[in-house]
Amino acid sequence: MKVAVLGAYQTKFGELWDKSLEDLIAEAVFGAVEESGISIDKIQIGFVGNMLSAITAGQNHLGALLSEITNLSVPFVRIEAACASGGLAVAQACLAIESGQYEVALVVGAEKMTDLSSEDIAQALMSAASEQERQAGLSFPGLYALMAQAYMHKFGAQEKDLAEVAVKNHYHASLNPKAQYPFEITLSDVLQSNLVSSPLKLLDCSPISDGAAALILCSEDFALKVKKNPVFIVGSGQASDTLSLSKRASLTELLSTQKAAKKAFAQAKLERKDIDFLEVHDCFTIAEILAIEDLGFYPKGRGFEAAAKSETKLGGNLPVNLSGGLKACGHPVGATGVKQVVEVYTQLNHLAGERQLKGASVGLTHNVGGTGGTAVVHILRKR
Amino acid sequence: MKVAVLGAYQTKFGELWDKSLEDLIAEAVFGAVEESGISIDKIQIGFVGNMLSAITAGQNHLGALLSEITNLSVPFVRIEAACASGGLAVAQACLAIESGQYEVALVVGAEKMTDLSSEDIAQALMSAASEQERQAGLSFPGLYALMAQAYMHKFGAQEKDLAEVAVKNHYHASLNPKAQYPFEITLSDVLQSNLVSSPLKLLDCSPISDGAAALILCSEDFALKVKKNPVFIVGSGQASDTLSLSKRASLTELLSTQKAAKKAFAQAKLERKDIDFLEVHDCFTIAEILAIEDLGFYPKGRGFEAAAKSETKLGGNLPVNLSGGLKACGHPVGATGVKQVVEVYTQLNHLAGERQLKGASVGLTHNVGGTGGTAVVHILRKR
Repeated sequence: MKVAVLGAYQTKFGELWDKSLEDLIAEAVFGAVEESGISIDKIQIGFVGNMLSAITAGQNHLGALLSEITNLSVPFVRIEAACASGGLAVAQACLAIESGQYEVALVVGAEKMTDLSSEDIAQALMSAASEQERQAGLSFPGLYALMAQAYMHKFGAQEKDLAEVAVKNHYHASLNPKAQYPFEITLSDVLQSNLVSSPLKLLDCSPISDGAAALILCSEDFALKVKKNPVFIVGSGQASDTLSLSKRASLTELLSTQKAAKKAFAQAKLERKDIDFLEVHDCFTIAEILAIEDLGFYPKGRGFEAAAKSETKLGGNLPVNLSGGLKACGHPVGATGVKQVVEVYTQLNHLAGERQLKGASVGLTHNVGGTGGTAVVHILRKR
Repeated sequence: MKVAVLGAYQTKFGELWDKSLEDLIAEAVFGAVEESGISIDKIQIGFVGNMLSAITAGQNHLGALLSEITNLSVPFVRIEAACASGGLAVAQACLAIESGQYEVALVVGAEKMTDLSSEDIAQALMSAASEQERQAGLSFPGLYALMAQAYMHKFGAQEKDLAEVAVKNHYHASLNPKAQYPFEITLSDVLQSNLVSSPLKLLDCSPISDGAAALILCSEDFALKVKKNPVFIVGSGQASDTLSLSKRASLTELLSTQKAAKKAFAQAKLERKDIDFLEVHDCFTIAEILAIEDLGFYPKGRGFEAAAKSETKLGGNLPVNLSGGLKACGHPVGATGVKQVVEVYTQLNHLAGERQLKGASVGLTHNVGGTGGTAVVHILRKR
């Protein structure tokens, strides 16, 4: 497959008290349109990834909101798949273009999370988990803590190995002006931060964030008329798994990630060694470790060594989460999967400033919903 | 375009106190699979249309729930577009098949609405409208009442003309064992029912319902291997409009319906005269009148005469809502757009029992979100 990315835009991520969901969507959409160089009326279909606005703002029907914002009457579709809503919106836009019925698609992911209290947003996020998990009193830190405990027990990883992921991603975020936390932290900062759910401490967890990101995607034919050397999405893989963590065979691997990666690599006709850098779903530090293993870049049980060895840091063999990741760039859930593609686009166009990976030509994004009930992988390249 | 419908299933619609959302989805999915004659593992992608489960049950991430129910790990995508969630799920499944990447798609629409109090569900439904409309204290009956008032004022329709739509649709429902209200009502029943929002009375309004519906869709090539003379979706049109009714140029027409119909007819290469019957979005009686006009079957301002003249009744020229429509078959919002396609499939296969339209060979479905922020039209035919 070959779907071009003509334009991309990310708003600042953070606690954006002065912006509404509508403001964030509008900024991202008009930003991506401007970057693309096409006029907005070339958009033929649009997808909006959002998880929580029904709960946080009593607002469903974001497709019609997008019609109002853009003043377009084309098809607009809201996609929801928990924290993978954004990545899935990208995947559906790719399908729409590949169907031959649409040449140009808008994708926007957005979430406004800080309007709820901590308790209420934690409860709202549990709508991504199963009824049984909610009834058991589990939270997402609790669910990922179970995965982390199982991983540490099985493979001998230590709490500091998890913490190294947070330190690395904060370093990357310190180079990213759009990041929610654009500053460095130390290993002892992480290890001494408040315990959330053992072994996960506050600084092992991604934050509650507001933000949006948008893309203009188009067919290869359309792209080559307007840009000389566009970035292309060359692989798009998606897979599902049980909603409940307890119904899976293993706590230490995500089958949905493995399957989505397999499909994306097959479509892209590329191998792991062809990938220069990754943006993966590090909602908790353990999640990045599982991701780089399940995506096939590290053997199962060895991913925890990557961050400590600086292999996944800018300057290493395989930089992971140059944006700062969910951990430090922020995690407005519906925006995350779209923002990952924005980051890869930015790197491939060598526009990433201080965090630019020299010679970046092929990048991969990996977005997860819940504890792995949904996973989406995209591979992007630029010659 | 040509996407085959291999199987279709509708649960009973009604106040289903003994069934959960999961139960309803499972019944519809397994029912459609059985009807299709294929094994469930042939499904390569699935779409679930649902509007409210985040609010009614604290449950998002229905794609992963579908993975758990079906025991499949293929891509599953939740689509939300208010009351058009089901129709949009059908449209996205068509795109997925037309992309050439998937041969067989599952579509399920489901909603479990009766677990909330009347006040809470009315408020939840307002998430399909705009923030300004919510702040103004409007409800959906209130919004459609504004449209009805404008229509009556402009075109001279009377309250009894609206009531005729309800009487007709209850007659159809009396022939449909799956209907929530399988009984007839009289004109005076409607006119004497409690006023909800003038001119709309209780029996002008569709009910709060539980229910689900599912479809197995596939490519033409796949279909011809397993069925001799399948039903095909030959046109799929979708369009958007402003979220707020107040931002539209007219209160008496839905531009989104007009545009969606135009696209569906162009794809199907059919004309209005080729259509034998319609399933339209009669969330309120006025909505059916607007629909048959905006779809191009009646001139603007004359649709209100159709029901009184029995033209849109079984036995008339153009039967509308043979299922009983949203009004009397019921309106579990996420299920409605899928159920409309189930009804057309059932009619085209001459399996509709007492409500069967003799010689039915081409049918149209029309599903609306909000007051017209989203509209979807599908045209189905069987030779």
